[in-house]
Amino acid sequence: MGAAYDGRVTVSLDDLPLRDDLRGLRPYGAPQAPLPVALNVNENTHPVPESVASDILDDIAVALRDVNRYPDREFTTLREGFAAYLGHNLQAENIWAGNGSNEVLQHILQAFAGPGRTAFGFGPTYSMYPLLTQGTGARWISGVRDSDYSLTADDAAAQVRAADADVIILCAPNNPTGTPLGLDVVEAVYEAARGIVIVDEAYQEFAPRESPSALTLLPGRPRLAISRTMSKAFAFAGARVGYLAADPAFIDALRLVRLPYHLSALTQAAAVAALRNAPTMLSMVDEIVEQRDRISATLEALGYTPHESWSNFVLFGGVTDPAATWRALYDRGVLIRDVGIPGHLRVTAGTEAETTAFLDALASIGSAA
Amino acid sequence: MGAAYDGRVTVSLDDLPLRDDLRGLRPYGAPQAPLPVALNVNENTHPVPESVASDILDDIAVALRDVNRYPDREFTTLREGFAAYLGHNLQAENIWAGNGSNEVLQHILQAFAGPGRTAFGFGPTYSMYPLLTQGTGARWISGVRDSDYSLTADDAAAQVRAADADVIILCAPNNPTGTPLGLDVVEAVYEAARGIVIVDEAYQEFAPRESPSALTLLPGRPRLAISRTMSKAFAFAGARVGYLAADPAFIDALRLVRLPYHLSALTQAAAVAALRNAPTMLSMVDEIVEQRDRISATLEALGYTPHESWSNFVLFGGVTDPAATWRALYDRGVLIRDVGIPGHLRVTAGTEAETTAFLDALASIGSAA
Repeated sequence: MGAAYDGRVTVSLDDLPLRDDLRGLRPYGAPQAPLPVALNVNENTHPVPESVASDILDDIAVALRDVNRYPDREFTTLREGFAAYLGHNLQAENIWAGNGSNEVLQHILQAFAGPGRTAFGFGPTYSMYPLLTQGTGARWISGVRDSDYSLTADDAAAQVRAADADVIILCAPNNPTGTPLGLDVVEAVYEAARGIVIVDEAYQEFAPRESPSALTLLPGRPRLAISRTMSKAFAFAGARVGYLAADPAFIDALRLVRLPYHLSALTQAAAVAALRNAPTMLSMVDEIVEQRDRISATLEALGYTPHESWSNFVLFGGVTDPAATWRALYDRGVLIRDVGIPGHLRVTAGTEAETTAFLDALASIGSAA
Repeated sequence: MGAAYDGRVTVSLDDLPLRDDLRGLRPYGAPQAPLPVALNVNENTHPVPESVASDILDDIAVALRDVNRYPDREFTTLREGFAAYLGHNLQAENIWAGNGSNEVLQHILQAFAGPGRTAFGFGPTYSMYPLLTQGTGARWISGVRDSDYSLTADDAAAQVRAADADVIILCAPNNPTGTPLGLDVVEAVYEAARGIVIVDEAYQEFAPRESPSALTLLPGRPRLAISRTMSKAFAFAGARVGYLAADPAFIDALRLVRLPYHLSALTQAAAVAALRNAPTMLSMVDEIVEQRDRISATLEALGYTPHESWSNFVLFGGVTDPAATWRALYDRGVLIRDVGIPGHLRVTAGTEAETTAFLDALASIGSAA
């Protein structure tokens, strides 16, 4: 413990007056290992096309001319861009954004949860929800799913009514399971809840084209918010841009808790330019969906049990020893994710070559138990 | 109240289940008015030089190649850059950064303040400190300054001992007064405090060259942190980059509360490139200091009472009706800041032309009462 600087040995974390509820915690850490095939954090493994990168760079060059000034605190041009992209008659006043959808969710939890309040979701779900909730001083309540991770409207509503939480987060499709969520479940949960209902559609662009977004449910539901991210479909994880759509009054609440100027001028410029190139950016989605379905089919042929996925990843069961399989893939240069569900592993759909590398490596390990 | 979207009238904020402690609050809002001469938010009004902007753009172009991947969560290259810039034998492990120094301060308050705890500072000081504190659920305690806004070591230590706060924030030089702070005060406050002591050196580069930074006090003081920003001296307000130096164990504490991947790859690339050009960026500082001293001298000649400033702005008293003077300047195209101190206004030192515009406009209004 303790590291030297300036010739002195420093203290350890335990010696500092840290908050009691943080003592003993470890920082969030999906491994960032430099492996040739990284399919562990549901990134879009397709780089941004050269033509789009060049367009983004042009906009950033313009933004740099005024970078000595604070950015537009209301990021109006970006909000207009998101409204146009989402459609459904949404306007800039319906839109909020942050440095990744984690920050957007944090803003919601700061405004509507926080000390003495609670947030609720159906586990297993995105591991950041409980951490974000506890980070605002609120308590996380976990509901349960059917054995195939699906949810029915009646069951979900009953659990929400019993939990009586201030904020409910529905991940649709669900991470880390890929499970779709019917809009009837969202409607039933909204009716059953007295609090805020967030539908986290981080992976919505990978769902079947004809499946409706929860955006269609927004009118007349002021406690509902639909969050999205540019990290996945837009191949923009490095740029950190999350956003949401909700009633304008809901947006006003988030203005009370955000840090002033939270979105940099460079982030705003990059996101606006990427949105302008939405058709090009989204053309990669079809290819990823194809690889995802190829993964599911091949996993089944290998004797594993992939779960239905509407996202850019596949959770699969039938893994006798997940840690051993994870390690064997790692040794073959392929990084996937052990999400802590017994007998399961999760893999992101990569490019065709990456997907082949994963499937070949898995096949070489030997079939499922 | 309420705005229409999709043909429906929406609710008002009061209809949503907002936290009780947020009800009735207004969002932070320094006016963002499009006036020809904006000297209201202590920006560096000199644009980033063309050669530096071009260098930054090159680094961003490289970062865009991998923007589909999550950024380096540990922003190691950037931390190395800050350590080299600050000197004093600091290493990357001593450095933290965030989206603006507001986020850096928020991380400290989340780790060491929060619900049931307190933070303390000597008013009048940076208006975000109480807001950031309350945002983490902690209570803000305000100490007092001498009539010229200075602080002695004995008085400061006595107030800190009496307040017994978990986090103490010393703004040096102080915003909005510009007042320097002796290192003897920092030492005395550290001894008197059981909690964390932050020295916010956002404006340190504008202090006399020979004046030592609180960075010299870091060795052997693990509860001490020195925060800085690239917004002022580096003319980078739009890029949102704040940072701090502290003991490595202190940095570990901040890892527990930050959002994963909080610093985008574009932010990291832009900041690294700007730091590489530090000598060019800092060459503007001397010019700004010259304009600041010109402002002080001219204000005095006009019958106002400027306070000593080691920053890039001047607070001046002797203003009979601050709101009227602010408005008269506004009508002449010059935006400055009414910081709420009776009989006072604050003005940022701009370029020579902007400074002349301000001084001429003020002179045209008539001399002080």
